[in-house]
Amino acid sequence: KEKKILTLAGDGIGPEVMEQALHVLDWVQENSDLSFSVEKDLVGGASIDANGVPLTQEVIAKAKAADAVLFGSVGGPKWDKVGFDKRPEVGIIGLRKELGLFANLRSAIVFDSLIGASTVKPEVIQGLDLMIVRESTGGVYFGEPRGIETLPDGTRKGVNTEVYTSVEIERIARVAFELARQRQNRVCSVEKCNVMESGLLWKEVVTELHQKEYSDVELSHMLADNCAMQLVRNPKQFDTILTGNLFGDILSDLAAMLTGSLGMLPSATLGSRQANGVIPALYEPIHGSAPDIAGQGKANPLAQILSLAMMLRYSFDQQAISEKVVHACEAVLNQGLRTPDIMSDGMKLVGTEDMGKAVLVE
Amino acid sequence: KEKKILTLAGDGIGPEVMEQALHVLDWVQENSDLSFSVEKDLVGGASIDANGVPLTQEVIAKAKAADAVLFGSVGGPKWDKVGFDKRPEVGIIGLRKELGLFANLRSAIVFDSLIGASTVKPEVIQGLDLMIVRESTGGVYFGEPRGIETLPDGTRKGVNTEVYTSVEIERIARVAFELARQRQNRVCSVEKCNVMESGLLWKEVVTELHQKEYSDVELSHMLADNCAMQLVRNPKQFDTILTGNLFGDILSDLAAMLTGSLGMLPSATLGSRQANGVIPALYEPIHGSAPDIAGQGKANPLAQILSLAMMLRYSFDQQAISEKVVHACEAVLNQGLRTPDIMSDGMKLVGTEDMGKAVLVE
Ligand SMILES: CC(C)[C@H](C(=O)O)[C@@H](O)C(=O)O
Ligand SMILES: CC(C)[C@H](C(=O)O)[C@@H](O)C(=O)O
Repeated sequence: KEKKILTLAGDGIGPEVMEQALHVLDWVQENSDLSFSVEKDLVGGASIDANGVPLTQEVIAKAKAADAVLFGSVGGPKWDKVGFDKRPEVGIIGLRKELGLFANLRSAIVFDSLIGASTVKPEVIQGLDLMIVRESTGGVYFGEPRGIETLPDGTRKGVNTEVYTSVEIERIARVAFELARQRQNRVCSVEKCNVMESGLLWKEVVTELHQKEYSDVELSHMLADNCAMQLVRNPKQFDTILTGNLFGDILSDLAAMLTGSLGMLPSATLGSRQANGVIPALYEPIHGSAPDIAGQGKANPLAQILSLAMMLRYSFDQQAISEKVVHACEAVLNQGLRTPDIMSDGMKLVGTEDMGKAVLVE
Repeated sequence: KEKKILTLAGDGIGPEVMEQALHVLDWVQENSDLSFSVEKDLVGGASIDANGVPLTQEVIAKAKAADAVLFGSVGGPKWDKVGFDKRPEVGIIGLRKELGLFANLRSAIVFDSLIGASTVKPEVIQGLDLMIVRESTGGVYFGEPRGIETLPDGTRKGVNTEVYTSVEIERIARVAFELARQRQNRVCSVEKCNVMESGLLWKEVVTELHQKEYSDVELSHMLADNCAMQLVRNPKQFDTILTGNLFGDILSDLAAMLTGSLGMLPSATLGSRQANGVIPALYEPIHGSAPDIAGQGKANPLAQILSLAMMLRYSFDQQAISEKVVHACEAVLNQGLRTPDIMSDGMKLVGTEDMGKAVLVE
């Protein structure tokens, strides 16, 4: 049966890297009995330019009707002045919310052939494979009240609210425990419970769920500031990190940079299974829209291609073909091909298109 | 004129490292015409054990009356169950608030002799000298409403509030701009304005103040997630980082760990000049109470001693003697003495006391 994919390439390097991912998708179709219908639409700044808003109702409806969304990246200086409610980032934040994509899975994996690209010593990161399970429809990203008000004396006041309910915490903790069971069976839950009551509740709910249903999984707790330190000191101590929206945003970017290859890292954001059996899912690179190199054919398409591989695995249950794509990516690295972000001595510098095409050759 | 110092050693390794700092203070008195009266009191868990609360009104009064507070560290598993309002951390958070210590200055400096102790490659951090100016009496640490409530259906809800006013933002930005002028004249202001309105206000106020009064300083803006990445990718790009309480907590710990020597890093927290001319100030190591090694004579006392050096400089205007203490610390490193946290091949392993005593020898 044909699977419906909605692609939202977005801004900056998004369209360039998406193009390469779609070539890989063609190759997947030619070399398997899978078939896909691909619909393309706009999001972020590109949608602002065309429609005046970063995320249209039509795109939301299409995303809901699709079996999976393949997302690029949004944002750029061009839209710095559009106003808070219409900023390009609403494209991705709004999709997460509208589709109920509460579980943002971000893995930081070190590719052996790229180990030198990291600023961290090889022995510290060799073989690193950690998974960050970030809650992505709650916390300070969505909490009310929020906004800026001017007080009678002219002072301005900016407010945001961090809110987590036990239901939200339990739901995301469950995802982390389930994933950990398929990994090294260790979850480290991260909050700032020595300062924030919302973090205290987080810790309590995770502890309760663990005792009730997941006591076979090893559970530890860590403060967010300490976690940032420990990621630098010894990232291999972690298997699965479970955390909220804001801490997850920061810690997953930090973890990604440890690998030295942000251009290589995909992510998946998943919701709850729907009545029709579909689990809403969006796949996107961890890197942003990189406006500084957009349109120059320099961007690394591998994170977008690996996002496609994640889609094949998680949304379409195609373990084998997904691994084929991952291996094809590793193979081009082993051949010595490098985009500028991962370039090192003795390697062959290539652009987005050449990198993407090389992945096609089996 | 005699200067009044209040020492609050706190918990864990706090008392051990404080003892060494006080030896250095004796040495300072013997080798200069400065004189100090030192009063000692309890804070954190130690105060809970003695007084039932982590910070007594008496200690607050003493801190207000002192010319400077030298602080150790608070917290430990022993007090895990005391309840949120009485936890040891209230000792430090409460002091910041009660004394109006809004400017937490945390520098991350790499000591050449310790460069190998970092997990980051030497070329990335050699000569690193960055300063994080963290707001420390506002944000989500103090914002109301806060707490945990149980809804009618049994769901629990944890809430915290991130609040910043233009007055608070301007005040801390001023500190960063002033400090930058004495450094490399570059400020990078960090928030999450693509998600949080409080961050948007932060960016606006910093930009306005810069245009009005500090346009000679180079100003840039960065999102907190990107800043975490950039600190790993190329920390030397930063001179002075200006940020809020929560981001500052995480980013300063991350920056500290890049240096490989958390046991080496002091911090100062300053308020506004009082009617009597005194600027309220608290000096403390960046490291925590390290309960796992407490009482074993293993802790590195240098961060506490360097906190004393900062006190001599910032509160007592003793640049020369402050530098003498800093150089004495560097000298013991150059002699090859190392506590376990900074131990490496070929160096001489020593304990807290031997390290502290070695600093005394001129
Ligand atoms: C684009 C931005 C709103 C987004 C976020 O903060 O979640 C991004 O940083 C991410 O991590 O996906
Ligand atoms: C002890 C704790 C409350 C404190 C904080 O979060 O501010 C500490 O982490 C710090 O950075 O000084």
